Amino acid sequence: MAALSASAFAVILAGGSGTRFWPASRRSLPKQYLPIGGPRPLIAETLARLEGLVPPERTLVVSAAEQAEALGRALPSLPRENLLHEPCARNTAASVAWAALEIRRRSSDSVQVVLPADHVIRPAERLRASLRAGLEEAAASGALVTFGIRPTRPATGFGYIELGAALAPRDGQAVHRVLRFVEKPERERAQQFLASGRFLWNAGIFAWRTDSILAALARHAPSTLEGLSAALGGGDFAARFEALPSVSIDVAVLEREGDVRTLPIDYFWSDVGAWNSLADVVEPDAAGNRRSGGAELSVLDASNNIVHGDAGALVALIGVENLVVVRAGDAVLVATRERADEVRALVERLAREKPRFV
Amino acid sequence: MAALSASAFAVILAGGSGTRFWPASRRSLPKQYLPIGGPRPLIAETLARLEGLVPPERTLVVSAAEQAEALGRALPSLPRENLLHEPCARNTAASVAWAALEIRRRSSDSVQVVLPADHVIRPAERLRASLRAGLEEAAASGALVTFGIRPTRPATGFGYIELGAALAPRDGQAVHRVLRFVEKPERERAQQFLASGRFLWNAGIFAWRTDSILAALARHAPSTLEGLSAALGGGDFAARFEALPSVSIDVAVLEREGDVRTLPIDYFWSDVGAWNSLADVVEPDAAGNRRSGGAELSVLDASNNIVHGDAGALVALIGVENLVVVRAGDAVLVATRERADEVRALVERLAREKPRFV
Repeated sequence: MAALSASAFAVILAGGSGTRFWPASRRSLPKQYLPIGGPRPLIAETLARLEGLVPPERTLVVSAAEQAEALGRALPSLPRENLLHEPCARNTAASVAWAALEIRRRSSDSVQVVLPADHVIRPAERLRASLRAGLEEAAASGALVTFGIRPTRPATGFGYIELGAALAPRDGQAVHRVLRFVEKPERERAQQFLASGRFLWNAGIFAWRTDSILAALARHAPSTLEGLSAALGGGDFAARFEALPSVSIDVAVLEREGDVRTLPIDYFWSDVGAWNSLADVVEPDAAGNRRSGGAELSVLDASNNIVHGDAGALVALIGVENLVVVRAGDAVLVATRERADEVRALVERLAREKPRFV
Repeated sequence: MAALSASAFAVILAGGSGTRFWPASRRSLPKQYLPIGGPRPLIAETLARLEGLVPPERTLVVSAAEQAEALGRALPSLPRENLLHEPCARNTAASVAWAALEIRRRSSDSVQVVLPADHVIRPAERLRASLRAGLEEAAASGALVTFGIRPTRPATGFGYIELGAALAPRDGQAVHRVLRFVEKPERERAQQFLASGRFLWNAGIFAWRTDSILAALARHAPSTLEGLSAALGGGDFAARFEALPSVSIDVAVLEREGDVRTLPIDYFWSDVGAWNSLADVVEPDAAGNRRSGGAELSVLDASNNIVHGDAGALVALIGVENLVVVRAGDAVLVATRERADEVRALVERLAREKPRFV
């Protein structure tokens, strides 16, 4: 494996504010700060996965200013100056642009990987091999590189990437041109995508040269890049940041760029989108029960349940099956596994009726 | 209604230490101190039911010394000198004997009602009418009086009282001789008892003259009465109390006494024996969910559940039916309603494996 001549940076995007992990996740504590499926917060696992590829000194995290405290607690080893606190959420184009400007300020010749804070990807060595190959591909070609997940089911909740021509493998990893990006499909179309073998899930994981992404932003999203440069230049940062367009980096740049390449990820990946997805990331015990968070579990004839609870707490189950049971702070959720996704509707109602629990 | 010539006292027996309301009930906080099915602890409801019959100054509570703090919190209006703290549990004969000796010390001519702290009986006016008639019957006849619950199902968990000859009604209330006491029956026998109309449940509610119960204790349980008198006379009270026989007042005295009378209670009574019994004492909402304790409840398509939680907490249910869900302190219990009684087995295991939660 060739050493990278340019400095490699990592950018972790931690702006998520999902409600699907209520009551463990709250307004002030989104999913990425929770120890879902493991002993450490998802964002700490994400940082740990980069160990050996990018050191903490060159890892930036972009997050909401209101989560600064949670972020500091979750990543105590990260230098404070590597935390970019957004005054409000303006989607990923703004986050990527800010991180790129900050990295250019620090280094005149750099490459970077960009990845979400709240996914589970295993094994870490294989991810690092993919990311390293992607960085090398980006460094050598100047192209924007995206990592696509080899689909395992006809998911309708993700965007897809259609594979184009195969290019020369990089460091033993397959590389393809991206033919096009496709929005979340209907079920039937998703089944066709899966069957064709020519589509990957778009997981929001990228690699590029810093000068490449800044040039692409200047071409396709000038108002984002110029607005941000002006905001960083002085004046009321929060007000100027708030005035930026709210758009994803995919829509603003990737879908408009001519030369985008992709490296397939065909090992375990999950965006851990809802409580029921813990079935994929947590090993079951002999009775099929899965335990997450630090809580203890005690059961009598209970099976195939998903249990998450605060450290120091106990969840006891008698005779129940296929439930999601969550004990977090002052709230408890008990739902059937098949309907656990409806926690979003419940949280919307709570926000109106009992906002102190949201 | 004739005024009672003797002073009327009440004795509330609060020695229970059940585990069937775990995790709300713990070693240091048994069921009688919990706000089960209402806003106040069961023992506070029991005291309130006596209002107008016996004033707090003449109401004694016998409880475990280790629950002194919980008792003080639950009954702040009761004079401290009316709380008799047992150094260990020696069943109800010892409790009744201690209360009788204390009442005799305070009054030379008194009657008393004795009742458990942790039952639900409604309406309170009807209970007071029964108790008053029982006190009058006891005062006039010198007999020991027990109140029997008219059975509504062939319960196998209670002892029964067989009705003997009808006596003259007292204050409009039916009075019978007790033919015999019967231990908890098998199912078939319980069905015969129910069908016959001649049996009542023995609920541990009594009325008697203080001199009558002391004389009966002297006749049938001299070691209890003499041991207790000696313990109260000086020396190591705890050691002497511990040396008393552990026996119920029913077995030690009532079953051996010749003239025992009974007044039937044919209005609502429940011993609130387990979580599922909240179905009897708490009104359901439109979806059939029952809420107990101070917790808030928020549901999406959930029905016929029993929910108990600490004040200030929230329990949220999605798509679940016929569950018992309890959030109390550091623990959560989720059980099917039909198996919620098995919490006793669970608590036994926890006592061995995770004692800090018991």
